[in-house]
Amino acid sequence: MDKRKICFVITSSIHYSRSKLILSELKNRDNVELQIIVGASAILPNYGDILELMERDGFSYNEKITMTLEGGNPVAMAKTTGIGIIEFTTVFDNLKPDVVIVRGDRYEVLSAAIAAAYLNIPVAHIEGGDVTGTIDESVRHAVTKLAHIHFPTNDLARQRIIRMGEPADYIFNFGSPELEFVAKNSYEVSNELINKIGVGDAVDITKPYLMVMQHSVTSEIGYNRENIEKTLDAIHELGIPAIWFWPNVDAGTDEISKGIRVFREHQQPKNIRFIKSLPPEEFVGLLKNAACLVGNSSAGIKEASFLGTPVVNIGTRQNGRMKAENVIDVSYGKEEIKQAVNKQLDHGRYPTSNIYYQPDTAKKIVDTLSTIKLYVQKSFKD
Amino acid sequence: MDKRKICFVITSSIHYSRSKLILSELKNRDNVELQIIVGASAILPNYGDILELMERDGFSYNEKITMTLEGGNPVAMAKTTGIGIIEFTTVFDNLKPDVVIVRGDRYEVLSAAIAAAYLNIPVAHIEGGDVTGTIDESVRHAVTKLAHIHFPTNDLARQRIIRMGEPADYIFNFGSPELEFVAKNSYEVSNELINKIGVGDAVDITKPYLMVMQHSVTSEIGYNRENIEKTLDAIHELGIPAIWFWPNVDAGTDEISKGIRVFREHQQPKNIRFIKSLPPEEFVGLLKNAACLVGNSSAGIKEASFLGTPVVNIGTRQNGRMKAENVIDVSYGKEEIKQAVNKQLDHGRYPTSNIYYQPDTAKKIVDTLSTIKLYVQKSFKD
Amino acid sequence: MDKRKICFVITSSIHYSRSKLILSELKNRDNVELQIIVGASAILPNYGDILELMERDGFSYNEKITMTLEGGNPVAMAKTTGIGIIEFTTVFDNLKPDVVIVRGDRYEVLSAAIAAAYLNIPVAHIEGGDVTGTIDESVRHAVTKLAHIHFPTNDLARQRIIRMGEPADYIFNFGSPELEFVAKNSYEVSNELINKIGVGDAVDITKPYLMVMQHSVTSEIGYNRENIEKTLDAIHELGIPAIWFWPNVDAGTDEISKGIRVFREHQQPKNIRFIKSLPPEEFVGLLKNAACLVGNSSAGIKEASFLGTPVVNIGTRQNGRMKAENVIDVSYGKEEIKQAVNKQLDHGRYPTSNIYYQPDTAKKIVDTLSTIKLYVQKSFKD
Amino acid sequence: MDKRKICFVITSSIHYSRSKLILSELKNRDNVELQIIVGASAILPNYGDILELMERDGFSYNEKITMTLEGGNPVAMAKTTGIGIIEFTTVFDNLKPDVVIVRGDRYEVLSAAIAAAYLNIPVAHIEGGDVTGTIDESVRHAVTKLAHIHFPTNDLARQRIIRMGEPADYIFNFGSPELEFVAKNSYEVSNELINKIGVGDAVDITKPYLMVMQHSVTSEIGYNRENIEKTLDAIHELGIPAIWFWPNVDAGTDEISKGIRVFREHQQPKNIRFIKSLPPEEFVGLLKNAACLVGNSSAGIKEASFLGTPVVNIGTRQNGRMKAENVIDVSYGKEEIKQAVNKQLDHGRYPTSNIYYQPDTAKKIVDTLSTIKLYVQKSFKD
Repeated sequence: MDKRKICFVITSSIHYSRSKLILSELKNRDNVELQIIVGASAILPNYGDILELMERDGFSYNEKITMTLEGGNPVAMAKTTGIGIIEFTTVFDNLKPDVVIVRGDRYEVLSAAIAAAYLNIPVAHIEGGDVTGTIDESVRHAVTKLAHIHFPTNDLARQRIIRMGEPADYIFNFGSPELEFVAKNSYEVSNELINKIGVGDAVDITKPYLMVMQHSVTSEIGYNRENIEKTLDAIHELGIPAIWFWPNVDAGTDEISKGIRVFREHQQPKNIRFIKSLPPEEFVGLLKNAACLVGNSSAGIKEASFLGTPVVNIGTRQNGRMKAENVIDVSYGKEEIKQAVNKQLDHGRYPTSNIYYQPDTAKKIVDTLSTIKLYVQKSFKD
Repeated sequence: MDKRKICFVITSSIHYSRSKLILSELKNRDNVELQIIVGASAILPNYGDILELMERDGFSYNEKITMTLEGGNPVAMAKTTGIGIIEFTTVFDNLKPDVVIVRGDRYEVLSAAIAAAYLNIPVAHIEGGDVTGTIDESVRHAVTKLAHIHFPTNDLARQRIIRMGEPADYIFNFGSPELEFVAKNSYEVSNELINKIGVGDAVDITKPYLMVMQHSVTSEIGYNRENIEKTLDAIHELGIPAIWFWPNVDAGTDEISKGIRVFREHQQPKNIRFIKSLPPEEFVGLLKNAACLVGNSSAGIKEASFLGTPVVNIGTRQNGRMKAENVIDVSYGKEEIKQAVNKQLDHGRYPTSNIYYQPDTAKKIVDTLSTIKLYVQKSFKD
Repeated sequence: MDKRKICFVITSSIHYSRSKLILSELKNRDNVELQIIVGASAILPNYGDILELMERDGFSYNEKITMTLEGGNPVAMAKTTGIGIIEFTTVFDNLKPDVVIVRGDRYEVLSAAIAAAYLNIPVAHIEGGDVTGTIDESVRHAVTKLAHIHFPTNDLARQRIIRMGEPADYIFNFGSPELEFVAKNSYEVSNELINKIGVGDAVDITKPYLMVMQHSVTSEIGYNRENIEKTLDAIHELGIPAIWFWPNVDAGTDEISKGIRVFREHQQPKNIRFIKSLPPEEFVGLLKNAACLVGNSSAGIKEASFLGTPVVNIGTRQNGRMKAENVIDVSYGKEEIKQAVNKQLDHGRYPTSNIYYQPDTAKKIVDTLSTIKLYVQKSFKD
Repeated sequence: MDKRKICFVITSSIHYSRSKLILSELKNRDNVELQIIVGASAILPNYGDILELMERDGFSYNEKITMTLEGGNPVAMAKTTGIGIIEFTTVFDNLKPDVVIVRGDRYEVLSAAIAAAYLNIPVAHIEGGDVTGTIDESVRHAVTKLAHIHFPTNDLARQRIIRMGEPADYIFNFGSPELEFVAKNSYEVSNELINKIGVGDAVDITKPYLMVMQHSVTSEIGYNRENIEKTLDAIHELGIPAIWFWPNVDAGTDEISKGIRVFREHQQPKNIRFIKSLPPEEFVGLLKNAACLVGNSSAGIKEASFLGTPVVNIGTRQNGRMKAENVIDVSYGKEEIKQAVNKQLDHGRYPTSNIYYQPDTAKKIVDTLSTIKLYVQKSFKD
């Protein structure tokens, strides 16, 4: 029997976390040959190098691609996309996968989708059809129009993909893969673990604690520093223990990093510990018990909805994303953020929401990927 | 008064032809600073280098970009896209345009759109929303999802762009710019002109003659040679004078070129002259008087609809494109092609169709481009 | 036992021909793991795609890299070097060779040498230290200064490499590998073989015949067409059967190709057959019996010296190269070329010269490569 | 009169500092059109963005190129070279300089030299012929073999360039341009200036103080962190005020940065202030009064030789470089470093050395550049 060669592209550490169950499922299927390509920020130590994690979890990669330009600005982001296409093309041309699977809306994902599409390799895309802010909003839908098989994570997204002219019988809402992972995870994070990594004072997470994850907004280049300073001041003044994650590699990240560095230097905040990343199990464990997640991460919209963790969502980055009742939206403003966090602390945990969750997501995705009839030539469905 | 810096990207010789009126209009406006970038196949002598034409017409370029990989295959096409992004990013970063305008659905266009979008420069896109075959079908819609201002050339296309979630007040159907050019053009092509360029025997275009333009179909890589041979045999056997245009640079072009070269070597056809390209005026002049255009060029769908030139459209490349009554669709097959051509010769010219034509297209596009309120952050319109 | 991983880089079809014995030797050694990377013009059908040849000969490659820009001009050559570095870096980073072996002075070779050098992988270089014209002269010595182990093909070259500050105990003159191949080859080329490939009239090589191989000179861009026309006229007027090889991919190649194409179209020469390339055995078989080789190929200096084939070497490309008595140097000029060819036809074959030949070249190179102590940090030897 | 177009490439902030006098001289000549290209780490804020400095000094650039890959490792360094070639090629092709001038031995310099050489643009190279450690040693000589005009900074270097086969009448030792700058500079650095930038405790430079500049050694990847920790411990234990410069962008820089970051977090040293860079005048002013410069910067070998500043040079990076008596070489070791620093503190300042200094360096270089007969085709001088 000919195995179907399914090539999974991992270009950020959160990709890996959110796809572990799919990867395991692919690896264990008899009718599948799993190919893994790792690259971009997923292999940059500053953003949470996943190579060690993968080894721990028993995955090996076929090719590793260094492609991220330094600068944390739009120029770097654009050029990284270009390099990514050149590199993915060579790799796909050598690995000859039957189908390439990508996830999300980042620039490296666009690279992989373009390379595969031009090589007449069908592209499967997880998490299309959502609406958000930043350049991700454009890129996500562009990837949809290059892809052949769609795994949106909710029904609104599925409807949008249909509207965009994709064939309904190639669009599957099996829920969000990371929520299945969340549902199955029971890891408990200790003070010891959290204080042996990162920088800043030790924090006590046996007490109510905050998590902060605020990434740059690419369409607000030039304002990201000023915006992060609002959040820094708010968290500092709240005085509650906080675990703060450094921002991802998107354009504007240097504005945010600089904001944080200067703040640390001048304020020497006692209640905040800054860490780069956590392995998937630890991350979910930490989020599960957080009193509130603050920032603009999609983890607040997705993982936290299922966990019932209260969220204060800041600014435009998640604009348009379908949200459960655990989220309070605020704009950039110290007082507004503080009030919202206090409100969430008063409220406490929310009931589990299933807007993004379905059981057996990974199994269903892999069933489909490994058996669906593949096609190359796309055609807008009127 | 601050002039709006409008950057026009020209990446194939047909781009140039089809955009001349817009370029003139942009150049003559007081409130516009026109920036021109030329690159890709537009500056490759094998595909009709436009630099000389531009000089003749009084246009100068700001930057010239060599970016096309050799090979005429999908790998080359994909990597060219990657290089294009890297290069366009540097150029846009240095020229700092207020808006970038691109046209069509080729890979270099995707490069320019991605570079501009990541740099937060609004993108205007001409000719989105059409439906066709080949990878162009995917790329055209991906560009739409990266673009901010849309100039589809017909109403069906406009409706699709709206369906894809773009804001209706940024989608303008002013007709197809090349048809305005066609309507204003009165150039007459002589035997002398046509026989001093290209290779093959001299042809007599005072008699009824054919034009042949058959490009590769990227999603039919491996079959392009066999398909072109059908057309070669058909045209050869028809015995009518024919002007045959070498294919463009798309993946699969080497299959077609090889088919033509071997055919010429073995058959030494007396009735066919092979040319690379013609300047816009000459091209339209030739098409206007052709007894029939054969192949899969969009010129058969667009320019020929207005001119009333009979067309035999072969294969899948123009699948889904809105067509006037001048077009007979056939699949790859010698006899089928011959019959269709004979049918068109019997029928003779068609009346002018206005499905793609509107008056003052260039003026309206430039009015809009130079004054419309620009925006950066996109958001899917539900 | 740990095998030494030796990575052989093949970037042109002539590389492959000239390295076959080394490749076989590497493949058969117990203490060596042979890695092969093919790319650049070696996989472009227009320049003699070697993938089929390799398969015939029982070699498989680890990675295939498409990297050549179209244009046949200096810009294309330079950018190809850049892409090559990006691509070789990824490939070396994934294959992790202990040593990379490259040959010659072309731009793709420079790419591979730079990528390996920066990755702290020792580089072995065949054929350094020669002196010639064109940009190759600069590139060859630059590669020497990036390389760690040197296999010059003659003693003058070895002395130059020592002068350039390289350590004498890492510089080995074992002769030129292709001459060992020539010495062992006994292939006889037939009329049938030569006339079933290429274009032009059939030629009769049972009669005295010429071979013509004239590549572009990169430092004479703009003059290559005019120069090739002199040779075309000379060969045409000589009227002797001639096998003409299309030029390689260097900058200026389009000037030469165009010169040939226009010449063929207008002159329809009866005595010349144009072919792209021949497999190594056939090539040497053809050269062995040629009455004279005309042009500027290094085959005239190297292979022909051993075979005793008379050579008319045109222009500056081989300036400075050590030559045996079989070579007459001429400049660009129809009469000069004709006179020199006639002189060579009168003279007939020359005795074998051993200036580039030594026995067991491949064995000695592989002995050294597989056992020599490797080092990374270079240091100019005063 | 036709002005000679001289294109100056600036790819690191120290390039700019060390070339200011040449840039001024070029700008003021009537027979010269100065073109400036800035790029690579020179425009990365993390490594001392020079755009602001240039504006302050009245220079404007023609093109700005973002090209540096993130990672601080050999892969990033190699790929940056590749991107650099692609980008410099486009820029040179558009600017059409008569001669390109580069300086030093970094990878971006290699990029520019390759791009220019392939485009048949003569390359002038400052500071060739020196001997050092790291990959710079290979790259410097490779650039020499690609360059046409050489400005070594000392006579030993000039002799090596002659030995490497370059024409003696195109090799000029006019001394080191930065020393002329040093000689003319009279800037005095205040406590206020130094303590308003950077991070760490305030230091008092009215007392004897150290400067520390230790960059990564690319051929010692994997050991750079351990090596920097020795220096950190030594400086910490010495307890004297120290100004520590973050490392440059070379492969291995992330090992060093991480070493410094972790050290700061754990040790919170009171005597060290960490800064990224200083403008040229301030830098020289600081060095002039330093009690000792510690690390492996070429500033210890060059600028400090003239200023008489005592230097403790650590490790292999400057191996082979001609040194004045102000330098004590030590290997990686805390005690060794401490002892050497104490010895230098006891000794105090050294007399001015002229081994790298000559008067009027900039004037002589520009006289030569603007008038020398240019050539393209290189040829090894036996």
